[in-house]
Amino acid sequence: MENITNYIQENKERLINELIELLKIPSVSADSAYSQDVIDTSEAVKQSLEKAGCDKVEICETDGYPIVYAEKIIDPNLPTVLVYGHYDVQPPDPIELWTSPPFEPVIKKTDIHPEGAIFARGACDDKGQMYMHVKAFEYMVQSKTLPCNVKFMIEGEEEVGSVNLKSFVENNAAKLKNDVILISDTGMISNQQPSITTGLRGLSYVEVEVTGPNRDLHSGLYGGAVANPINILSKMIASLHDENNRITIPGFYDKVEELSLKERAEMAKAPFDIEEYKKALDLKDVYGEEGYVTNERNAIRPTLDVNGIWGGYIGQGAKTVIPSKAFAKISMRLVPNQDWEEITELFTKHFIAIAPKAVTVKVTPHHGGQGYVTPIDSIGYKAANMAYTETFGIPAIPVRSGGSIPIVALFEKELKSKTILMGFGLDSDAIHSPNEHFGIFNYLKGIETIPLFYNYFVELSK
Amino acid sequence: MENITNYIQENKERLINELIELLKIPSVSADSAYSQDVIDTSEAVKQSLEKAGCDKVEICETDGYPIVYAEKIIDPNLPTVLVYGHYDVQPPDPIELWTSPPFEPVIKKTDIHPEGAIFARGACDDKGQMYMHVKAFEYMVQSKTLPCNVKFMIEGEEEVGSVNLKSFVENNAAKLKNDVILISDTGMISNQQPSITTGLRGLSYVEVEVTGPNRDLHSGLYGGAVANPINILSKMIASLHDENNRITIPGFYDKVEELSLKERAEMAKAPFDIEEYKKALDLKDVYGEEGYVTNERNAIRPTLDVNGIWGGYIGQGAKTVIPSKAFAKISMRLVPNQDWEEITELFTKHFIAIAPKAVTVKVTPHHGGQGYVTPIDSIGYKAANMAYTETFGIPAIPVRSGGSIPIVALFEKELKSKTILMGFGLDSDAIHSPNEHFGIFNYLKGIETIPLFYNYFVELSK
Repeated sequence: MENITNYIQENKERLINELIELLKIPSVSADSAYSQDVIDTSEAVKQSLEKAGCDKVEICETDGYPIVYAEKIIDPNLPTVLVYGHYDVQPPDPIELWTSPPFEPVIKKTDIHPEGAIFARGACDDKGQMYMHVKAFEYMVQSKTLPCNVKFMIEGEEEVGSVNLKSFVENNAAKLKNDVILISDTGMISNQQPSITTGLRGLSYVEVEVTGPNRDLHSGLYGGAVANPINILSKMIASLHDENNRITIPGFYDKVEELSLKERAEMAKAPFDIEEYKKALDLKDVYGEEGYVTNERNAIRPTLDVNGIWGGYIGQGAKTVIPSKAFAKISMRLVPNQDWEEITELFTKHFIAIAPKAVTVKVTPHHGGQGYVTPIDSIGYKAANMAYTETFGIPAIPVRSGGSIPIVALFEKELKSKTILMGFGLDSDAIHSPNEHFGIFNYLKGIETIPLFYNYFVELSK
Repeated sequence: MENITNYIQENKERLINELIELLKIPSVSADSAYSQDVIDTSEAVKQSLEKAGCDKVEICETDGYPIVYAEKIIDPNLPTVLVYGHYDVQPPDPIELWTSPPFEPVIKKTDIHPEGAIFARGACDDKGQMYMHVKAFEYMVQSKTLPCNVKFMIEGEEEVGSVNLKSFVENNAAKLKNDVILISDTGMISNQQPSITTGLRGLSYVEVEVTGPNRDLHSGLYGGAVANPINILSKMIASLHDENNRITIPGFYDKVEELSLKERAEMAKAPFDIEEYKKALDLKDVYGEEGYVTNERNAIRPTLDVNGIWGGYIGQGAKTVIPSKAFAKISMRLVPNQDWEEITELFTKHFIAIAPKAVTVKVTPHHGGQGYVTPIDSIGYKAANMAYTETFGIPAIPVRSGGSIPIVALFEKELKSKTILMGFGLDSDAIHSPNEHFGIFNYLKGIETIPLFYNYFVELSK
């Protein structure tokens, strides 16, 4: 398909600069200080879809940030692809660790990205990967090669749990009707080895508050005589894992699907070097559930991580205080069949149960979502694999990802169609971390590969 | 001694307003943002001592904040009282819990202080209690009733461990020569029941840092496969106490002095209502070391408290991150015979030893000090008790305090004289907490009682 490669070469600079403009808007959905920027971003996405050639583009208001919907229906009898993506981004904290400002995109070369990568919050997750679809669509329209109908649903609350997407999907099932859902919000093994994500973990995210005395106390006058909320919170968090690093919440593992040794052997075929992994993270050793290897621990096993903790005096110097309260943000990654609402309940019940009488505990659920596994014999999977094979010269490997895109399970339930996760990012892109980036190679390769998926999907659907 | 009561009545407003002016300067020694204010406060203290009638007043520079020294020598053959106090204060955090700004003093009535109390950071600890001595001295000079020589040593680094006082005392032993040291930086049982602190706990304060991966990671892609520094720090902190709430650091209790049942029975005579105690703090239950009651746990037993903890995302909303680092500020209250430097070493060795291979740990000692016990048959103790008995109409009860004034042990070692702790504050004064205050009654009662101590001390010294 030479045309697309020519198109990319001729428009390379524009394709990159348009994405850079989008990355300049700090659309941090978790922090209300950025709310106007998030809204401005939805407007920018709307305009880009209009320019790309959609017939109908709408900003759909929700109780939170708007969802941008767009479509181009060329023939009701042809298949329809629904593209999902999100225009919101993670908070940039800790900001001091960025080598360049998170919302002033710059292109820098790295060992993995000799052609350069765009450094900015959201470069990969998900503005960059979402925008690949807009540009691939633009090409198909301009070259008159669009083989089917297309719908876009780009939301602004993915990083805060897609809280308003559920009702939107439920209330717009007809409008969103499609034959396959296409999402680029995951990664692939390497720039030499494409992969397709066939499994995702679910998520339950809660915030806990432990209260001891009704006011901060002098640790000399009260130390040893009253429960210190920080010491207690630490004890409670510590008790959530046993000596084998298994989670101790009663019932937590009841519905966990145990993979067969054959399936685990299949997974083990994906190229992975534990020494490289440790070296890349400066780790003396890995750490996790007994009886599972690293690529199983972060993919097919559920986890419990504290994502944030705070309490007492955290300023400069020393303050001899026993604080009244201590807090933590805790998230659990879930595997298919674990229900996130049930797990949130089990956690809440257990966490309150293990609190000593000397403190009071409050648990506030933030959000969550179900895990997901997709079959590799579907038309959608085959079309994606054929597209990768053509542009990378080597077939894609199916992999289970530890990440969560809660809405995938929701889509299958409400829209009755399969989702194909065509990710073009790399683990080393540092999404959710300082210095997030997205390779120029990956961005352009995505734009090149996506139109092929459309062609093969229509072909195989005949 | 009617004259002093008259003097207080006639000058009441001025005595209160002068203290209020001193409280307006935010002399927070722990936070360098306030450094100029701390220095301004030393100047204000210097001027107040000159006005009060000292012959010689000096600002003595140190590697940190200056020490204000002053003296009035009326006859080398008479005894000399050395008054120690500090003009620095604790940080006001958490500032949002103050009902009035910490450095805009206001007088409010409370159940315990029907005559009103001054609400401000440092009102009790220690500006208010230090200033009582300046004003009592002023009265004795003006009424020509000063019965002996007086020296003042007012420092500005007590809340950060008096780091430069040691060398100052060592290098100025002759200048500081005295027969008794008088300090008001502790509390008493109630406004109806005076008490004299005969024991203080030592202190070891450290900061710990736990590092996992070299950068923040996405908890979906890495969760379960790498050590999460917050989970690990929680585990390590939790392991520092056993199921009986005894500290697990090897050797920690080796030098702890075990009180006889007789001594413990004596202590138990101090009026204390556990239900009142729980009610005042809104606690369902107290919490502490097995085998000891509340008033033993916070006085004669060593403790380990986390004074601050932080790591990961602590902003609004949710961020699914595994942080690279987690931190905690940890302090241990020590009892007489425990050496704070030895305990700091034991902690450091143990804390590094219990860290799993998957993380690296750094321990940074902040500061510390030795515990102290004073005999109740000394001239100084007797004089203090006689003074209290006269102004309160009831003898003072000797009590062990859980707090630390590290320099008391230092004074005994370097200056070879006993310290008398005449505290006029109350536990309910919320020192180190939001809404710290000091009763007008207590402030004036201190000014009334101190000259009596001088008289009785000189009398008993004959």
